[in-house]
Amino acid sequence: MATVLTISASPSPVSKTAAIRRFIDEQLTAQGHHVHALDVRDLPPAALLAADTTHPAIAAAVELFERADGLVVATPVFKASYSGLLKTLLDLLPQRALTGKVVLPLATGGTLAHALVIDYALRPVLTTLGATEVVNGHFLLDQFVSIANDRATLAPEAEKAVGKALDRFTGALTNRKASIEPARGMAMQR
Amino acid sequence: MATVLTISASPSPVSKTAAIRRFIDEQLTAQGHHVHALDVRDLPPAALLAADTTHPAIAAAVELFERADGLVVATPVFKASYSGLLKTLLDLLPQRALTGKVVLPLATGGTLAHALVIDYALRPVLTTLGATEVVNGHFLLDQFVSIANDRATLAPEAEKAVGKALDRFTGALTNRKASIEPARGMAMQR
Amino acid sequence: MATVLTISASPSPVSKTAAIRRFIDEQLTAQGHHVHALDVRDLPPAALLAADTTHPAIAAAVELFERADGLVVATPVFKASYSGLLKTLLDLLPQRALTGKVVLPLATGGTLAHALVIDYALRPVLTTLGATEVVNGHFLLDQFVSIANDRATLAPEAEKAVGKALDRFTGALTNRKASIEPARGMAMQR
Amino acid sequence: MATVLTISASPSPVSKTAAIRRFIDEQLTAQGHHVHALDVRDLPPAALLAADTTHPAIAAAVELFERADGLVVATPVFKASYSGLLKTLLDLLPQRALTGKVVLPLATGGTLAHALVIDYALRPVLTTLGATEVVNGHFLLDQFVSIANDRATLAPEAEKAVGKALDRFTGALTNRKASIEPARGMAMQR
Repeated sequence: MATVLTISASPSPVSKTAAIRRFIDEQLTAQGHHVHALDVRDLPPAALLAADTTHPAIAAAVELFERADGLVVATPVFKASYSGLLKTLLDLLPQRALTGKVVLPLATGGTLAHALVIDYALRPVLTTLGATEVVNGHFLLDQFVSIANDRATLAPEAEKAVGKALDRFTGALTNRKASIEPARGMAMQR
Repeated sequence: MATVLTISASPSPVSKTAAIRRFIDEQLTAQGHHVHALDVRDLPPAALLAADTTHPAIAAAVELFERADGLVVATPVFKASYSGLLKTLLDLLPQRALTGKVVLPLATGGTLAHALVIDYALRPVLTTLGATEVVNGHFLLDQFVSIANDRATLAPEAEKAVGKALDRFTGALTNRKASIEPARGMAMQR
Repeated sequence: MATVLTISASPSPVSKTAAIRRFIDEQLTAQGHHVHALDVRDLPPAALLAADTTHPAIAAAVELFERADGLVVATPVFKASYSGLLKTLLDLLPQRALTGKVVLPLATGGTLAHALVIDYALRPVLTTLGATEVVNGHFLLDQFVSIANDRATLAPEAEKAVGKALDRFTGALTNRKASIEPARGMAMQR
Repeated sequence: MATVLTISASPSPVSKTAAIRRFIDEQLTAQGHHVHALDVRDLPPAALLAADTTHPAIAAAVELFERADGLVVATPVFKASYSGLLKTLLDLLPQRALTGKVVLPLATGGTLAHALVIDYALRPVLTTLGATEVVNGHFLLDQFVSIANDRATLAPEAEKAVGKALDRFTGALTNRKASIEPARGMAMQR
């Protein structure tokens, strides 16, 4: 099983992006993966904006990236791009922090007109961070998500689409583990 | 003469991006423009990240946008895009906050390989904000800027290129004023 | 009045993109502008793909760019970007062929999910070509266009939106002419 | 071993892009892969521009895509994007033609300032085509390639970088085959 870091990057205290992240956390946990969840808005604002990686909470977040085999990155769309909040976190990571990792990008927005934000704005940043594999992402319309008691309920078509995106992600993780572990096994025998 | 808001968006206390902004402030002031300077890192971090536009300092920043005829937006390049710090500010503006305004985008970076960040990452966001005219920007290599006593000195070729970018910007501002003011004059005669 | 080159770049003989171009041609002509229309698929394929600017038809197309004060560039969206047909034409233009010109970008597509193609894919190319001003574009859903007898009929909301886009374009053209012509006048008096 | 389609998309008869493709063909063939090479400029221009997939040469090209496990896509940079020639070919492929395939994107250009074309322009198109994995690409400066007798010689640093890009590509191909074939084996035993 893999270690997965799931990130939500909405500045809002009641956020559909965060709700979807929790939905995904449950799915991945149920599949036996080790899930660490990070809501960027819980990080200390001054340290985050100053890229102060000596601050314990920031250092802990950076370590979560290091330990993860895979990442789910969920951002709301603001001004036809990812949230500034998300980018402040990505900005303070080491240059090639995502090397060796599989990433699933997700975006939420109020209009389908912003669907290309994943491929034209978010993916170039993830690729620059050295991500070994960024699987095809998913753009989720706000209207398909309802929140009650802090839990997200997805409309059936949205649940199916998120499920498919998770399958792509866990499939890629399994692939990569499968190809690394025999090699590790061989290395140990030498 | 025009009212110009100049923005620098580096999280670093000693920043070449901020130094270039000050260089530009001097040029524009010398030409008779009213210049307001904003270093995003001076805004209160918690309010900025939470998009709290009721905070007086944030409200004041938003008002600077409203009052400006033109904007100079200077960002360092991080992870093949604009800084997260810049985006946190742009995220909290009203949807079409740049309508009627002329914008000059500038980016600074350590490698020419990031030159396209202005056109592929920053300009789409400025356009989405309704900017009426985003003039051709300029990417400035860090190595052409030196800082002494908090003042930037630009290598001659960089100074010339920044000067040309400023000419495009002030030319567009003048154009737009010229076309608006006769119309205003006529309106007053009615 | 201005000289405008309108370009449609669909490979299809019955094209909504071309129909919209003709609709725009009529509007601009009715406003007194000199309109030259170019359907890229009418250019000789071998010369176009080989970027053979010595071919008379290609040379004539390049000259239309030179003479124009403004351009309307209409492309269908294919594979989340502009058409290859459009790009083959733009590729053979001189490096800064759009310097001094105003451009209105338009895209047509079957799903709103492709709306950002204008700002993330087409605009960077137009900017690189030196376009002095690329006004905010418009993405038109295929379903709002019907064709009968080679003429496009736009649904009322689409007609209104295209009209607004044309207003931005002709406004920018007028602005620019106004700012250039007094200068010319002064130059002549010297 | 895998079946690989290598594509070069320069309109020029003497092309560094095509020379690099031939260099890569040799490397992949030497490693035991089945390589099919396609120079887009060899396709019939009229059929290509009209997206006429009934033309035998175009149909044969489409079939090469279908048969391939992996693709190397090499394009010159024109006007801050991929070549129009490349896009005319990608435009006529079925919507999700790259599903199940691994892709290595390569771009050649005269200035490092165009390095981001791979991630901001080419990769979104490849992703939209359903590519299962687009490995990190490589931007090659023209000056590092010399051509003699129709063969490319790469400067040592360029040869090393292209070699690393090929390793990423063949590594991903092997991974994917490894994960598919045991599954196939199991399926056959049922």
